[in-house]
Amino acid sequence: MPERTPVVTLTSDFGTADPFVACMKGVILGLHPAIRIVDIGHDIPPHDIVDGAFKLRCAFPYFPTGTVHIAVVDPGVGSARRPLVMVTENYRFLAPDNGILSLVPEVEEVRAVYHVSADHYFRTPLSATFHGRDLFAPVAAWLCRGIDPAQLGEPIDDWHRLELPRTRLTEDGKARGIVWSVDRFGNVVTGLSRATLDTLAAKHPAGLVLTAATQRIGRLVQAYHEIAAEEAAYLVNSFGMIEIAMSRRSAAKALGLKRGDPVELAPATGSVP
Amino acid sequence: MPERTPVVTLTSDFGTADPFVACMKGVILGLHPAIRIVDIGHDIPPHDIVDGAFKLRCAFPYFPTGTVHIAVVDPGVGSARRPLVMVTENYRFLAPDNGILSLVPEVEEVRAVYHVSADHYFRTPLSATFHGRDLFAPVAAWLCRGIDPAQLGEPIDDWHRLELPRTRLTEDGKARGIVWSVDRFGNVVTGLSRATLDTLAAKHPAGLVLTAATQRIGRLVQAYHEIAAEEAAYLVNSFGMIEIAMSRRSAAKALGLKRGDPVELAPATGSVP
Amino acid sequence: MPERTPVVTLTSDFGTADPFVACMKGVILGLHPAIRIVDIGHDIPPHDIVDGAFKLRCAFPYFPTGTVHIAVVDPGVGSARRPLVMVTENYRFLAPDNGILSLVPEVEEVRAVYHVSADHYFRTPLSATFHGRDLFAPVAAWLCRGIDPAQLGEPIDDWHRLELPRTRLTEDGKARGIVWSVDRFGNVVTGLSRATLDTLAAKHPAGLVLTAATQRIGRLVQAYHEIAAEEAAYLVNSFGMIEIAMSRRSAAKALGLKRGDPVELAPATGSVP
Repeated sequence: MPERTPVVTLTSDFGTADPFVACMKGVILGLHPAIRIVDIGHDIPPHDIVDGAFKLRCAFPYFPTGTVHIAVVDPGVGSARRPLVMVTENYRFLAPDNGILSLVPEVEEVRAVYHVSADHYFRTPLSATFHGRDLFAPVAAWLCRGIDPAQLGEPIDDWHRLELPRTRLTEDGKARGIVWSVDRFGNVVTGLSRATLDTLAAKHPAGLVLTAATQRIGRLVQAYHEIAAEEAAYLVNSFGMIEIAMSRRSAAKALGLKRGDPVELAPATGSVP
Repeated sequence: MPERTPVVTLTSDFGTADPFVACMKGVILGLHPAIRIVDIGHDIPPHDIVDGAFKLRCAFPYFPTGTVHIAVVDPGVGSARRPLVMVTENYRFLAPDNGILSLVPEVEEVRAVYHVSADHYFRTPLSATFHGRDLFAPVAAWLCRGIDPAQLGEPIDDWHRLELPRTRLTEDGKARGIVWSVDRFGNVVTGLSRATLDTLAAKHPAGLVLTAATQRIGRLVQAYHEIAAEEAAYLVNSFGMIEIAMSRRSAAKALGLKRGDPVELAPATGSVP
Repeated sequence: MPERTPVVTLTSDFGTADPFVACMKGVILGLHPAIRIVDIGHDIPPHDIVDGAFKLRCAFPYFPTGTVHIAVVDPGVGSARRPLVMVTENYRFLAPDNGILSLVPEVEEVRAVYHVSADHYFRTPLSATFHGRDLFAPVAAWLCRGIDPAQLGEPIDDWHRLELPRTRLTEDGKARGIVWSVDRFGNVVTGLSRATLDTLAAKHPAGLVLTAATQRIGRLVQAYHEIAAEEAAYLVNSFGMIEIAMSRRSAAKALGLKRGDPVELAPATGSVP
């Protein structure tokens, strides 16, 4: 196995047309030129903390142990909102305390969270409008240079969690959730998991129907190529989430589905049209 | 010359707003953190294998010897379509067997193609919908770690070639092809090559006219700055392909040209308007 | 401090859908695989030298000493326009001689500028349409391999400076400039600096009003979170420039402002509506 190299990932709503992301990378390389910097994505809609939390949650588990993940969707920059470092089994996360780390504990046990206040690790002067460049980037580089997260500030318990719609199992044997995301292919990604599907499927051998907004999708497939022309089907995607897809076209567009739409997985009955 | 570092390129239709590309990079760095990962591009239109083949063919020859090129436009993921490794004089290519490697032999001699089946190099469990992350990314890292492509599976001859429109030389001394691409500047890139132009030019010293769809372009230039305001001209671009351009505006938009349009290079006659 | 690694940045109008940027990266890595390549941005509007100059000027100072910055917005490629290397206190810049380096001296003292003519450092054959790949990329790699910029060609003094609208201080105590850029958040970035603001503020303790096109913005804030719903305010952004912002919405869209619009900072009077 080749020698370990530190990795830092970046997730933000900065886009790539403005110089923001490049500034962060310059600051990181100035403090530690060996760091591999990987963009998880910068096309999070402006100020959309929930989408940032979702994209981060999808991508972060695929990075090497020790990776530092920076997530900056930060409408409160310059206010009293705290900068955080979250330590999990395999990673360190740097982010404003606004909920963008809310989905991390679904994947990894959180070992500690610190309020980052050790300002000798920040750029000076610290701007009031760009902590990505002046605070999170240099602190990430210092973490890669070996400082202990506990050196960054006081441990805290009350970090901000978003009130996110969780999957609910209803008394009559259904599972309810929402659409989390529509991907570039128009696949409609829901918050319902493989585990939920397996639980319901075990109870209802006659099969399950997925309803998203007013659309009923009756067929479960394993992969996209199984879907017939004009058919909509559902499958468990590669992140373990139930997703609605069509064959080489956008299911979101064809079915009129969008982020936030309610979804329900329920036993198939005679009423499927 | 500084020490050799392995390079992996990525070409896909994944876009950059979703976490797909980042997941591939995380997997690669987890297996071999020294690899330089370069994006050739992820804005291939969804499922557009021909465009992927074209973009890959333009970029791959500029990378260092030994580079591993991953190309994932993969509507058949999860079906019986085979994953391939293609070995050429200077490179290794990893791609689904759907034709996306069809243009590689135009540039480099193909030495061997293997059906990648050695699943101990894949991530487990292997998803049915994201082989970019679970198969091509880890296999690329293993190739950079030194395994022989022949260890990945059986050699094959029947890999899939797209039926692509090739340049045809007609009996009356013309060359026919199509528009392959329109670039960001609106330049209209055809499949006609510098060699075709030279062959016809040698036979017809009075000059050649390029016709694209219904547009006749009479003047050959060397560089964009030679083109007058409102004029359309053609030139041999930096990839050796004949291209139609205008001065600081989109030739595609001004002339109503698009990918797939027929082009013809023919001797100039008195009939040029 | 970890060992120094060479860094090359890329700024261009090439976009990321075409293979141009990847070709440049491949050429650089072929000559020096240890170079860290960072994109400042490739979404400069086609041929927009002024926007390229602005984005470069924002990002370059955040990179490590020794970084080579390539800026290729190059409508005159293939003409007699010269390729340049500019040496400043901390950096080397490679660009066509068309004004794209005009804003560099605002940040760093220029020590020397050379006309790059040592063609044994270029790719051969040198294309007439893509000097980013064939000239600037290899020369950047050679600079990182240690050649002296003076080896690249003759020193020159008459490099091209754009006639850019500078901030003017008027006799009646106002400052006039223009809108330089609108960022992804719709923040309206002006050419007026913190220094200008401080100068005027010292003279006019009753406060200052910013007028952009026909919009009067009366309140100065420190950070975005201080701005009330529906309010427009101005602040000094993290690059030291005065910027107009609204709360979680696009000030540019709401106020109808765009690049090039005139801005004026003036003493507040009773006439503020």
